Amino acid sequence: MNASTKENVALRVKKLRQSFADLGLDGMIVPHDDAYKNEIIPASAERLAFISGFTGSSGVAVILKDKAVLSVRGLYALQAKLQADKSIYTCLVQPKEDEIQWLVSQNAPLKIGFDSWLHAIQWATDTHQRLEKMGGALVPLAENPVDKIWTDRPAEPLTPIEDHPLVYAGESRGSKCARLAQTLVEKRCDGFLITQTDNLAWLLNIRGRDVVHTPLALGYAILWKDASVDVFMRLPKVGDSVRNMIGPSVRFHEENSIISFFKNKKGHASIGADFSKTPAAFTLLTGFDLHNMDDPCELAKCCKNQTEVEGSRKAHVRDGVALVKFFSWLSEQEAVDELGVMEKILQFRQEQDLFVEESFTAIAGSGPNGAIIHYSATPETNRRLKAGEFLMLDSGGQYRDATTDVTRTVAIGAVSPVMKDRFTRVLKGHIAIARAIFPAGTVGGQLDVLARQSLWSVGYDYPHGTSHGVGSYLNVHETLVRVSPLMRGAELQVGMILSDEPGYYEEGAYGIRIESLVTVVPSPDVPGMLAFDVLTLCPIDKNAIDIALLTLDEKEWLNEYHTRVYETLHLALTPNERAWLREATLPLT
Amino acid sequence: MNASTKENVALRVKKLRQSFADLGLDGMIVPHDDAYKNEIIPASAERLAFISGFTGSSGVAVILKDKAVLSVRGLYALQAKLQADKSIYTCLVQPKEDEIQWLVSQNAPLKIGFDSWLHAIQWATDTHQRLEKMGGALVPLAENPVDKIWTDRPAEPLTPIEDHPLVYAGESRGSKCARLAQTLVEKRCDGFLITQTDNLAWLLNIRGRDVVHTPLALGYAILWKDASVDVFMRLPKVGDSVRNMIGPSVRFHEENSIISFFKNKKGHASIGADFSKTPAAFTLLTGFDLHNMDDPCELAKCCKNQTEVEGSRKAHVRDGVALVKFFSWLSEQEAVDELGVMEKILQFRQEQDLFVEESFTAIAGSGPNGAIIHYSATPETNRRLKAGEFLMLDSGGQYRDATTDVTRTVAIGAVSPVMKDRFTRVLKGHIAIARAIFPAGTVGGQLDVLARQSLWSVGYDYPHGTSHGVGSYLNVHETLVRVSPLMRGAELQVGMILSDEPGYYEEGAYGIRIESLVTVVPSPDVPGMLAFDVLTLCPIDKNAIDIALLTLDEKEWLNEYHTRVYETLHLALTPNERAWLREATLPLT
Repeated sequence: MNASTKENVALRVKKLRQSFADLGLDGMIVPHDDAYKNEIIPASAERLAFISGFTGSSGVAVILKDKAVLSVRGLYALQAKLQADKSIYTCLVQPKEDEIQWLVSQNAPLKIGFDSWLHAIQWATDTHQRLEKMGGALVPLAENPVDKIWTDRPAEPLTPIEDHPLVYAGESRGSKCARLAQTLVEKRCDGFLITQTDNLAWLLNIRGRDVVHTPLALGYAILWKDASVDVFMRLPKVGDSVRNMIGPSVRFHEENSIISFFKNKKGHASIGADFSKTPAAFTLLTGFDLHNMDDPCELAKCCKNQTEVEGSRKAHVRDGVALVKFFSWLSEQEAVDELGVMEKILQFRQEQDLFVEESFTAIAGSGPNGAIIHYSATPETNRRLKAGEFLMLDSGGQYRDATTDVTRTVAIGAVSPVMKDRFTRVLKGHIAIARAIFPAGTVGGQLDVLARQSLWSVGYDYPHGTSHGVGSYLNVHETLVRVSPLMRGAELQVGMILSDEPGYYEEGAYGIRIESLVTVVPSPDVPGMLAFDVLTLCPIDKNAIDIALLTLDEKEWLNEYHTRVYETLHLALTPNERAWLREATLPLT
Repeated sequence: MNASTKENVALRVKKLRQSFADLGLDGMIVPHDDAYKNEIIPASAERLAFISGFTGSSGVAVILKDKAVLSVRGLYALQAKLQADKSIYTCLVQPKEDEIQWLVSQNAPLKIGFDSWLHAIQWATDTHQRLEKMGGALVPLAENPVDKIWTDRPAEPLTPIEDHPLVYAGESRGSKCARLAQTLVEKRCDGFLITQTDNLAWLLNIRGRDVVHTPLALGYAILWKDASVDVFMRLPKVGDSVRNMIGPSVRFHEENSIISFFKNKKGHASIGADFSKTPAAFTLLTGFDLHNMDDPCELAKCCKNQTEVEGSRKAHVRDGVALVKFFSWLSEQEAVDELGVMEKILQFRQEQDLFVEESFTAIAGSGPNGAIIHYSATPETNRRLKAGEFLMLDSGGQYRDATTDVTRTVAIGAVSPVMKDRFTRVLKGHIAIARAIFPAGTVGGQLDVLARQSLWSVGYDYPHGTSHGVGSYLNVHETLVRVSPLMRGAELQVGMILSDEPGYYEEGAYGIRIESLVTVVPSPDVPGMLAFDVLTLCPIDKNAIDIALLTLDEKEWLNEYHTRVYETLHLALTPNERAWLREATLPLT
């Protein structure tokens, strides 16, 4: 954090604290989340960054009169410590520590304010109960006091929505609504409130540009059991042509009318909502009695249809060409820094068909910056790539036909035997997931240890999950599908697309992560079993491998993968690039 | 099921159905469980066997007027199909199918009777809600109609309770009560209702003989925050000398007085109970407002203290001697059958110090009987061991200082290459668990895939968990600790004792299971990590191994294990037995 940000944050926290007395509060909770629970939020919703300086994509601050904490997940621990002013914020690292536990440990009857649009129903209920036990309370606020002191808050986004055509979506909006309406009938409820914007986008085959990196149109919707939909969205975003294309079974309303809509429906309809994600405002401000159920879009969205999987395969060829062009270019550079890397990989992607934007800000972590798991280079932190160091590059693209997400870690010059040892163990984990064969009914969490055991066997680990789901020209992180030590995740089903990304991080020295996207397929080798098919096409740096640590099977896997990468990509390259790829994909012996 | 049992079951079901009209019921649910939720129940509580003929240790029957189902876990599927009369019962196999889902799928307003002593609070609440959605109800019955038609029901057990001395328990009852009372203080509650009998036995260092195979004294208790305890138990079981030894902080009451005790406490005390295991009778019959919390004994019981782990090591030496004597004896037999195996292994255990009884009825499955996972040989099913077949022997002992549980599968003569392939894959899974190195915080479920991947990679699996916790002269199955695809299980902690038992079952042909008990230890090789130390001492049959499938590491593990088995046991054997063990433990090359 630079000095001016630091000064600003101190002033903002001071002003926020001054508002507590009038509101009868002992403190306030400020989450990263916006009112739609997307990971990526518009600038107008960046309240956590405003009040803490921490720019990670998840986290919560709790500000009391005389102390404050910033609670983040393991992968953000280092970043939080770098960005948040230690004299104001103590960092808590989840899941061992969390902000509510910290509040409870204050052992005092604290009244904590919260913005009910930014917290889920379940969270509000649980948290209120925990505070109540100490005589305290969670107090919903009519207006968010952070917004009041945020005088230069950016305007809310109002980008036009677009049709996501059938040639990419693979299933019409009518068909999706009809088949999910059927599940509402089965569950004997009249409608379902959709608050997750990517589910809304998936269901209606629409995309928007309200946030960076993900083609979302912020808004809410109710899917009814007759397969019609009421959408609540800022109407300036809904042009006539797209509205006509969508047709009359989808009714558009101004977004803020949803509160009166629910008030009017009170007692007249049974509507479900996912209490773990639906803003508490929907019950606290309307008095409507929602009932808790899973969003039926959630699983349906994760099981990509054939068109979507094919789209992903095609997009990964283009993405692979961009990556190979980049790494070939990099191999010829004498002096390049992280910001240069970010610029260049974007440029190569921009040359590809159907590219829209990056699916997240590229992470180019050289040397010790690679150990900051969700690092984002700035002019202050920017480092030049140095011989003997790793460059970890995690990047991805939004293409009209798919979303990509890939990490490669490359040795700049020769790296040390210890670095090769760690890299190879991460690679063994990556290969173990990629080669896994498993029965139907297996949930992602069951496979996690395969990615970790080579690191565990020498006492190492990595503080993040092994895999997350990936959307189809949608969110780069879909949460239902995951391979993680913490959660079971969904049952893996044919068509799901997810990442395979073990890592290793040596604080102050280097970071390693090897990530490809994979899709679940019927095992081509073992009838009746499932397996992963790797979508990502980009060489894994052989110069970083300690070959002696690989088994014969692992070497074969890598050689076959590299052969496929070469065969698929070489025709789209210049002779120079092709020569580089030939060398990078020569078999290990 | 023999013909006379079949006839009896049909008659009993008919009589039960006749009782429905008077009770205003459409059906009745009959679980295996007794009022204490132990896996092993006294003969007087074997209502499920009485009404269905199925003798497995878990399951539920639902009997409607014109149809009935028997719902069992995967490992009992084959047994249930063999034992239950197909003309009466349709078998449902959990977790894919379950009896309540089946009831809901009847799509009718069914009134289903239940005995509230035999079902947990949580189950009763959930099930009632599910039935209510179809206009039905779960109806608590004043008297169990099964008991009414069970005219020759055995008497309830009334065995005297005994002290479990400090030399085996390792911690006094006073110390245990004081440290768990502290957790009640922290959770701000006055007391905790203990309904799991093994927790009661653990807490008070008492043992009984109310059921076979497990030294339990049936009863209930309330642990108070002042570390005193009220025990509710049939008083004829509590002799003066043990009562004096236990001391005045533990007050004994006649068991059936617990209902009036709770009625009197209404509004005067805050008492916790584990709603997933506490009989619904405690709330339905008393009106007392219990609150849901984990039984504090549960985790404490699973983390064995040093005395208990040492006791287990010593008991496993004796158990290993019995096993080696048995297998040495077996190698010299010309003709032996399953019942002979069961008799002989018991006899060798009985010769060992501190042996009390078997920890379960030994499972001696020869040939196709080995594929019945919890098979129990009867004169009708008894098979003679045959060359070319596997004998799977799963057995264990209750010793004063520990509980053991071990399975070895041995080749009788030469077995086929396919059988060796499957055996070796099970062994690879067994070794993968035994050799695992993992960080603190790892839950059992994370490791499960290690045991399965060798089978999965060729399209096979086994329909049961990989591991369960084991008590210390207590239950052979402790449920908190487990390695399973279905549940996360507890975080693995130093001192926990659990099984390592992958398997493979080829219906109609053979069963394979290799099971040893292990205890969690700090890894001797990797500082800061945890590992398993194998307690069980018994050779693994080399004649059943396809050596080409083992990695060098796996061969080394097996050779080291066999060396340890020989070194530890050989002095307690006759020259003949020693020669057999020498041969059985010679290193693979």
